[in-house]
Amino acid sequence: MRATVIRAPHDIRVEEVADPVLQQPTDVVVRVLRACICGSDLWAYRGESARTPGQRIGHEFLGVVEEAGAEVRAFRAGDLVVAPFVWSDGTCDYCAEGLTTSCPQGGFWGSVGSDGGQGEAVRVPFADATLVPLPADAASDERLLTALLSLSDVMGTGHHAAVGAGVRPGLTVAVVGDGAVGLCGVLAAKRLGADRIIALGRHRSRTDIARTFGATDVVASRGDEAVAAVRELTAGQGAHCVIEAVGTEQSMRTAVAVTRDGGAVGYVGVPHGSATGLDLGAMFGRNIALRGGVAPVRTYLPELLTDVLDGTIDPSPVFDLTVGLDEVADGYRAMDDRTALKVLVKP
Amino acid sequence: MRATVIRAPHDIRVEEVADPVLQQPTDVVVRVLRACICGSDLWAYRGESARTPGQRIGHEFLGVVEEAGAEVRAFRAGDLVVAPFVWSDGTCDYCAEGLTTSCPQGGFWGSVGSDGGQGEAVRVPFADATLVPLPADAASDERLLTALLSLSDVMGTGHHAAVGAGVRPGLTVAVVGDGAVGLCGVLAAKRLGADRIIALGRHRSRTDIARTFGATDVVASRGDEAVAAVRELTAGQGAHCVIEAVGTEQSMRTAVAVTRDGGAVGYVGVPHGSATGLDLGAMFGRNIALRGGVAPVRTYLPELLTDVLDGTIDPSPVFDLTVGLDEVADGYRAMDDRTALKVLVKP
Repeated sequence: MRATVIRAPHDIRVEEVADPVLQQPTDVVVRVLRACICGSDLWAYRGESARTPGQRIGHEFLGVVEEAGAEVRAFRAGDLVVAPFVWSDGTCDYCAEGLTTSCPQGGFWGSVGSDGGQGEAVRVPFADATLVPLPADAASDERLLTALLSLSDVMGTGHHAAVGAGVRPGLTVAVVGDGAVGLCGVLAAKRLGADRIIALGRHRSRTDIARTFGATDVVASRGDEAVAAVRELTAGQGAHCVIEAVGTEQSMRTAVAVTRDGGAVGYVGVPHGSATGLDLGAMFGRNIALRGGVAPVRTYLPELLTDVLDGTIDPSPVFDLTVGLDEVADGYRAMDDRTALKVLVKP
Repeated sequence: MRATVIRAPHDIRVEEVADPVLQQPTDVVVRVLRACICGSDLWAYRGESARTPGQRIGHEFLGVVEEAGAEVRAFRAGDLVVAPFVWSDGTCDYCAEGLTTSCPQGGFWGSVGSDGGQGEAVRVPFADATLVPLPADAASDERLLTALLSLSDVMGTGHHAAVGAGVRPGLTVAVVGDGAVGLCGVLAAKRLGADRIIALGRHRSRTDIARTFGATDVVASRGDEAVAAVRELTAGQGAHCVIEAVGTEQSMRTAVAVTRDGGAVGYVGVPHGSATGLDLGAMFGRNIALRGGVAPVRTYLPELLTDVLDGTIDPSPVFDLTVGLDEVADGYRAMDDRTALKVLVKP
């Protein structure tokens, strides 16, 4: 089959690789219908996260079960399914608690030795625990299929940030970052009942999506100016809940600065760089909590799926460019130079 | 009156200062019966926190109301009261929410222009909101009076750490730091129903108190060795809830390392030094939360007071040395060289 590999920074290729086969009786093989490129894939693309030359890439996909192992109970060939970006065994302590990302037998698509999402097919370990079934008729609904793909990562990750930030009805939320995760954070905050949602972002096309997702205010400045603007919007106090969806020192610094005393930063931007951007003295004096991390999207999938299917939320607008598998390198370039927000890949 | 002042690092003196007088109709003047020295006073003593030469010091006290302003409703001369380490107005948004430490009109005893706790008397602003009444007969019960003094800071701060760490019945708690706050953290964790409490500390006399406070295990090593020991005690996973009661880079590093995936560090050790000790990459991957800060002990005072009065908790063993006001410098020396755990001052 053909699959995307990363040979070196800025060197994304589609190559012929071995077809995935069942290795364990709990595996299935999924033929990929839709995949996409994640902001975190760009860290590998830019050489900021190390990759083995030739390693697969892509961790978001949905598709059709092609073959199921003998011990798979929940799925059979022909089923439409969505995969969270981490597989998990469904039986360990952490899976039982919903922290599927800490499953000792879990792993990330595209890690060495596993298939990546940006390819024609994927071997899925622990299929019963990992995959979530989708209604068969979704396959013929282009818009719905795109919305469902967001449940593989970006919508669940935005939701994790909102949960970490403690979003509840009536509270004020600020969202640092206008990438796809930040926008899904806006949508998640709206879904959880936030009264006021302040989106920080400088790209008009993105903050326009933020507004359709529920943002009540947009702050287009950065740094100290952005902090001052959020404080002005919140009677000088800051936001109860702050979603940090970038992962840089600067964005974390802004997130802490715009948080109201006693509030929380929910962070899902993959941290990179050696400095944390955390002013612990300020956080201590103002009792600001920090919660978040890699999102256990498998746990969130059923509730978010229900809301996508009944039309309560529609994250599909975060995808603004579609490429075929052969043009996946163009998709990376478009996201790297910010001409695309999030790229859908149709193998 | 006589009060403790800090002239320079390691230069603690008792000097004649102006008698406190009512400045606002909401003030009272409290004659101090008991005060004490806090671990955080040592940062000033050691020159690690800046102080104005001659500034008062001490922020923990209980005593008898000597004079009450015209608008004070809850107290009158002769009442026995305990003060939290921060005064607060009781009317602002933050006070209404229980975050009294963020009250815009609030302040710390011993800050420039205010009285400190380690003196004969203190002017208390916003007395109705700040002070908590104690039963009159407590004044004649030496042990009870000592236990009640802990509600001024150290017991409420240990409780704040336990709350921040998310202690609930059935969970495993690790406590980093065997100072008075850490020990009160053990007591608070026990009170909140922790199933297992692992105290990290190398001073036998202190960890013995930890055991009487409810610690089920003691780890006497430090750094990597301590981390390995906690993991061995917790099936390799770490503790659900970790109390960080020191405030150094090393202690925070240990706290994060012994936290179970999905767990939380409740931190109350005043951060000092430029490095946070936070490995944000590890916290992200393992979904470890950080919550805490300066404790709003006024908010916790009523519930903790009830439990001290009915004997549910007795924090008094954290005080192991008593000095008169004239010997307060000896008290600082004893805490600085660790021959005393926490020093009680009787003016």
